[in-house]
Amino acid sequence: MDLAEELASKQRSISVAEFFEKNKHLLGFDSPTRGIITTIKEAVDNSLDACEEAEILPDIYVAVKKTDRDVFRIIVEDNGPGITPAQVPFVFGKLLYGSRFHQIRQSRGQQGIGISAAVLYAQLTTGIPAVVTSRTGHKSPAHRFELLIKTETNEPEIVKQEEIVWDRMHGTRIEIEFKSSLAAKKRLLDYLRYTSVVNPHARIRADIDGDLHNFERASDEIIVAPKAIAPHPHGIELGLLKRMAALSDKKLKEFLIDGFSRVGEKNADEIIGISGLKNSRKTSGLKIEELKSLLSAMQTVSVPPPPASQCLSPIGEEMIIKGIDKEFELDFVKSRTRKSQVYSGNPFIIEAAIGYGGKLESEGSATLMRFANRVPLLYQQGACAITNAVSQVNWKSYNLPQQGIPTGPVMILVHVASTNVPFTSESKDAVAAIDEIEKEIVLVMQDLGRELKNFLSRRDKNKQEEERARAVCSLLPDIAAKVSEIVEKPVPDVSPLEAQIMRKVVAKKQTIGGIVEITVSNHTRSPVSVTVYNMSEDSAADAEPKTDFTDVIGSEYNKLWKAEIEPESAWKATYTGTGSGTLDVRGVDGKKLVVVDLDA
Amino acid sequence: MDLAEELASKQRSISVAEFFEKNKHLLGFDSPTRGIITTIKEAVDNSLDACEEAEILPDIYVAVKKTDRDVFRIIVEDNGPGITPAQVPFVFGKLLYGSRFHQIRQSRGQQGIGISAAVLYAQLTTGIPAVVTSRTGHKSPAHRFELLIKTETNEPEIVKQEEIVWDRMHGTRIEIEFKSSLAAKKRLLDYLRYTSVVNPHARIRADIDGDLHNFERASDEIIVAPKAIAPHPHGIELGLLKRMAALSDKKLKEFLIDGFSRVGEKNADEIIGISGLKNSRKTSGLKIEELKSLLSAMQTVSVPPPPASQCLSPIGEEMIIKGIDKEFELDFVKSRTRKSQVYSGNPFIIEAAIGYGGKLESEGSATLMRFANRVPLLYQQGACAITNAVSQVNWKSYNLPQQGIPTGPVMILVHVASTNVPFTSESKDAVAAIDEIEKEIVLVMQDLGRELKNFLSRRDKNKQEEERARAVCSLLPDIAAKVSEIVEKPVPDVSPLEAQIMRKVVAKKQTIGGIVEITVSNHTRSPVSVTVYNMSEDSAADAEPKTDFTDVIGSEYNKLWKAEIEPESAWKATYTGTGSGTLDVRGVDGKKLVVVDLDA
Repeated sequence: MDLAEELASKQRSISVAEFFEKNKHLLGFDSPTRGIITTIKEAVDNSLDACEEAEILPDIYVAVKKTDRDVFRIIVEDNGPGITPAQVPFVFGKLLYGSRFHQIRQSRGQQGIGISAAVLYAQLTTGIPAVVTSRTGHKSPAHRFELLIKTETNEPEIVKQEEIVWDRMHGTRIEIEFKSSLAAKKRLLDYLRYTSVVNPHARIRADIDGDLHNFERASDEIIVAPKAIAPHPHGIELGLLKRMAALSDKKLKEFLIDGFSRVGEKNADEIIGISGLKNSRKTSGLKIEELKSLLSAMQTVSVPPPPASQCLSPIGEEMIIKGIDKEFELDFVKSRTRKSQVYSGNPFIIEAAIGYGGKLESEGSATLMRFANRVPLLYQQGACAITNAVSQVNWKSYNLPQQGIPTGPVMILVHVASTNVPFTSESKDAVAAIDEIEKEIVLVMQDLGRELKNFLSRRDKNKQEEERARAVCSLLPDIAAKVSEIVEKPVPDVSPLEAQIMRKVVAKKQTIGGIVEITVSNHTRSPVSVTVYNMSEDSAADAEPKTDFTDVIGSEYNKLWKAEIEPESAWKATYTGTGSGTLDVRGVDGKKLVVVDLDA
Repeated sequence: MDLAEELASKQRSISVAEFFEKNKHLLGFDSPTRGIITTIKEAVDNSLDACEEAEILPDIYVAVKKTDRDVFRIIVEDNGPGITPAQVPFVFGKLLYGSRFHQIRQSRGQQGIGISAAVLYAQLTTGIPAVVTSRTGHKSPAHRFELLIKTETNEPEIVKQEEIVWDRMHGTRIEIEFKSSLAAKKRLLDYLRYTSVVNPHARIRADIDGDLHNFERASDEIIVAPKAIAPHPHGIELGLLKRMAALSDKKLKEFLIDGFSRVGEKNADEIIGISGLKNSRKTSGLKIEELKSLLSAMQTVSVPPPPASQCLSPIGEEMIIKGIDKEFELDFVKSRTRKSQVYSGNPFIIEAAIGYGGKLESEGSATLMRFANRVPLLYQQGACAITNAVSQVNWKSYNLPQQGIPTGPVMILVHVASTNVPFTSESKDAVAAIDEIEKEIVLVMQDLGRELKNFLSRRDKNKQEEERARAVCSLLPDIAAKVSEIVEKPVPDVSPLEAQIMRKVVAKKQTIGGIVEITVSNHTRSPVSVTVYNMSEDSAADAEPKTDFTDVIGSEYNKLWKAEIEPESAWKATYTGTGSGTLDVRGVDGKKLVVVDLDA
């Protein structure tokens, strides 16, 4: 048939650069707006990974600068170990080139696609070469490259290369220019903030077209890169086993012990026994049927799970809370790092946190922060296993309304750390639906849900107590007056009664006849040292005692007194005014303090 | 720094086969169960594409056979044009190899990844080579290959090659064996049925481990493969323009007219004028800044949209309905093929259908069938632009309840046909969120929603009419009796009145004093021939006239009479009984029939 010949003549090989140029949305370049975020994300991932490998506290500078009507220059610069001049063109100018793809350990970048995809996108939209500057130490000069990618062959094209003087001792700087817009600026800042939350050891300075943002480090603890491990006998497939066996010149037992995680003498003997093979066999000579028996034996024998502590680097409960505290002000936050688990032979750890109140929006869906290997996931929330697992939890039993994910002033953070995070696409937006991972997320959410429920009940109980105290305090004087009228005696002082009821510090504001009276009574058993804040439109110029400080904010006066109050004593201030505004007391544990504003 | 050198030593190139072996879920091989469906889908896509190019009515045989405890052999064989022996190893043994990637036209396969990914998956899980048999015509012998993929280089490895005798004149057969399960059999059958719906010209025979299914063709019209078109000046990016210009030896004007869709003399002159370039320039000599001016001019000048009718192959409204009728029994179905539109320079057409009733589940979400270039999309429904667009429609205004997508006995079909369907991943499960595409889907859904609403109102009106008739029929005798009592006359026969009101065939059942009376009155203007069915616990042994047939079903008797009734006449049957059960009449158009069961 002539047609088959004609069809054959059209067949040709497609370079991976051509493939991703046409399918750029798979890499997160579906829109010019998103391109900026994707580029910064890929560059920052590389910087953080490199700093960890070099055991350096990361200092990262990010800039986005408008250079033309719709063209932006994106700059990311780090203080990492630098890249040798021979490698620079390949790292930035060739897709599927990298150091981490073949290693079994947690890292941000893995595929060797991300940053070169940004270079590809730049040359596609503006034709401007990417500029890379890198220096590997004070003894070496810095090298500056201008790079393109030859799309048809997926090979780097060096437009220009020169040695330059650079005041930085070591590090890498990439500058990429493409058509874009800053429409997604809020999301970009979210990305930087979230990155800072899960990388509290990093400092990130950002200049978003003149708008400066600093994300300071919350910890000076250097993060050490996890170590690569050998494959686990339960997580290997025939294809890889065949390649490993062919490349090895070892005998069977040695091959098993050296080549696989957690396989010792005993396990190796057991595997060989079940496989029916002879230990004297060199693995390079094994036939496919023999390899199948070997694999089947490897998967039958009980072997401890992979050594997750070596190859994974969870953030840790304390660091997660430090990171959240640094960027968010919440009433409540708890975190959990679970024990490592395994899916298809890949170790993984789920970490999570739940936060409540503070400045979180009280309406609408909870803020869900998704992370994989310390990288925020910003798109495709609906398609992500994390979202799915969070939605599976019955939040109503933890007193939270829910529509899929919970609603209300709630923040949920989930971090999936794994040697092989199963993403739904190369753009690494969403975690694929893996049962083992979803199950772990559901469990950690239930655990944190219980903690949040306890907090909410305590809070409700405190509120109730305060309301009761308020009711009692407002009734006591009337009761006292009534009683004294009936028994025809002068009105007694009811303060000691309040003390008996409460055993707390009671701050009270009451305005009668244009005189504002603030009293703080210490009904506890120890002296307290408090600061009283009273913010209102009253200037309180005649205050007795005088305020220690008065701050004018717009039309309001923030009045501040400091006071030492002995047990069973009270402090009092008065001034002429309307009594509007707020009363606040600091220096006493919230549980021991009751603030009663009788003017409110 | 030594570290940079150490890191450099770990850098290496990753072959695309290695990449997809590790990230096999991106290609739809996330689970052994899904692997079967993905493999069949890729092979059938290729068969249908090849048959279209050869203008052959496709005859496809699909088989899944268990060969071992957890190993299945998947076979797909077609009557297509065959593949030349030189090409077979590359088509099946090399990822990113194909004929359709560089062409701008609608086709099912595009990436040259799918079927070789299945070969890769087989060698990974069972190590068994794929077997490909192909023959290009009666003058050539058939060739049989056993193939593997060298993962490290992404090159085919020919394990065995031989000429064989094959009774098929032309066609291709692939056999792949991997670890799997038939847990997703229902979904596999759905895939075959849906494929048959949108490819009514194809016949598909399936043998799913002994369970045979035939999907016959509903049309003998040969589908002609769409023609490739040149890129459109509005849809091109700088990178591609640069490559096209460098490869051309033409002058500017000729380059524009020959190289781009819809650019004529006038447009070319206009573009050149705006670009400020001289027509005498050869495009291969243009500098990047000049190319930018040219591109900007190309995008400024108004050019007609791309010639969608050449490069796209919509199914068509009639064929969609034929396909649906063939596989589903519905009370109502309508389809629409919209005019072609363009996103980022890529032409696309949206087609859709809506169906109601029949055997569709009356509870739960509507059945949503998603298609892209005549291929069913089976996974990731939640992440798909089609689902999103369907959910955006306010279905309540078309009298359908909705929870996201509509609920109830509704079937929705949406087909996206494009020269470049934007999928969210290589596994082609979901269409990415492109505004232009979502907008078109919303519009076609609104259009079909109105049609469905009309149908539902008509149906409701018919129901209402029947209820009114029933009310009139049941009241008429009482009214007649009352009136005759008042005027002291005998009770008149009210049947002529019913006829006046209704002009219909009225079937009536009424039981008085243990006598069941069934009457059928023909109030139309022509004679009717009816069959009366009366199912109840009464045996009607004394029926007058005798039943033509009585069937005993459990404790019930299905009684059947045949009757010829002249206009303005009635037929009557009586028997002793309770009058319970049902009455049904066949042989009259539903709109002209009123069944009134006064015992109900």
